[in-house]
Amino acid sequence: MLEYLENPVVLKSSYNPSGADNQQERLDADWVVGFVDGEGCFFVGINRQPSMKIGWQVLPEFRVVQHERDVAILERLQEFFGSGQVTVNHGDRKELRIRGLQQLSEVVRFFKQHPLRTVKRSSFECFAEVIELMQHGDHLTEEGLTRIRQIISRMNRGAQNPQRPYARTPVEATGG
Amino acid sequence: MLEYLENPVVLKSSYNPSGADNQQERLDADWVVGFVDGEGCFFVGINRQPSMKIGWQVLPEFRVVQHERDVAILERLQEFFGSGQVTVNHGDRKELRIRGLQQLSEVVRFFKQHPLRTVKRSSFECFAEVIELMQHGDHLTEEGLTRIRQIISRMNRGAQNPQRPYARTPVEATGG
Repeated sequence: MLEYLENPVVLKSSYNPSGADNQQERLDADWVVGFVDGEGCFFVGINRQPSMKIGWQVLPEFRVVQHERDVAILERLQEFFGSGQVTVNHGDRKELRIRGLQQLSEVVRFFKQHPLRTVKRSSFECFAEVIELMQHGDHLTEEGLTRIRQIISRMNRGAQNPQRPYARTPVEATGG
Repeated sequence: MLEYLENPVVLKSSYNPSGADNQQERLDADWVVGFVDGEGCFFVGINRQPSMKIGWQVLPEFRVVQHERDVAILERLQEFFGSGQVTVNHGDRKELRIRGLQQLSEVVRFFKQHPLRTVKRSSFECFAEVIELMQHGDHLTEEGLTRIRQIISRMNRGAQNPQRPYARTPVEATGG
């Protein structure tokens, strides 16, 4: 029954943002969508930031959390997206966290090409709207920030799983 | 940004156990693997069953649990595998549950062709061993039952997520 372990399948990939096409075995794009449908989190924080003219910083983030025994899969996702950091989430849980407008624009592009299948898609669509506004610099204006707050409030409407603390819906953190 | 909603992608599927090839949009096999890597559970129960000669019944089960808002994805998985029941798990959670040796043999065949990527694969391999033994009727002999108990004890070694009650590792239920 272990024949597939002895003969590893070389997987196709229709998306290769990191250009690492010399990988022996890359994750399949559809596998990534399925896994993120189960385990991914699209999150937008708004933090107090007095050093910024508008006083607030918009911090979008894509996150996948796993028990530390599955850290290898987070590293493969990191390699797949070509960005992000694998760090401790809390306790024995690790997370892949992707931040940065350019990196997240790539993530958004991927999930537009390969749509999510669960209701997490509605959170993603809000997230994508925020990224698009930020690409135009709208998060640096009062009007844009108000619009982003409205979008975030839509993300709060139960599209994610409340039983998982790490998959929490976006909140406005007022630290800093 | 909603172009992919207006132009739904017709997905490929290299596996079609239900023969439902007239579906407009089937789940992709790799998506299913990714989703099950995140959300699936391979479970083997052993229940006291006085009406059986050996006194115990081996009850393997494949299960995917979601919040009820995502019941549609469970129905699509049910359609994908061509078997199983979608029922209440607990509270506002629903589950797709596949039982029965013939149905589970199909599930095992699928995940042998399309290997899981997380450590859940080790639970699956134990599960597949149990199914194979059952295919030979070994669960009806003392020796086979002992072997199955040994395999189940290997499944208990932390391959699943203890923080999710529905993804619990196999236990031996001794109810009537």
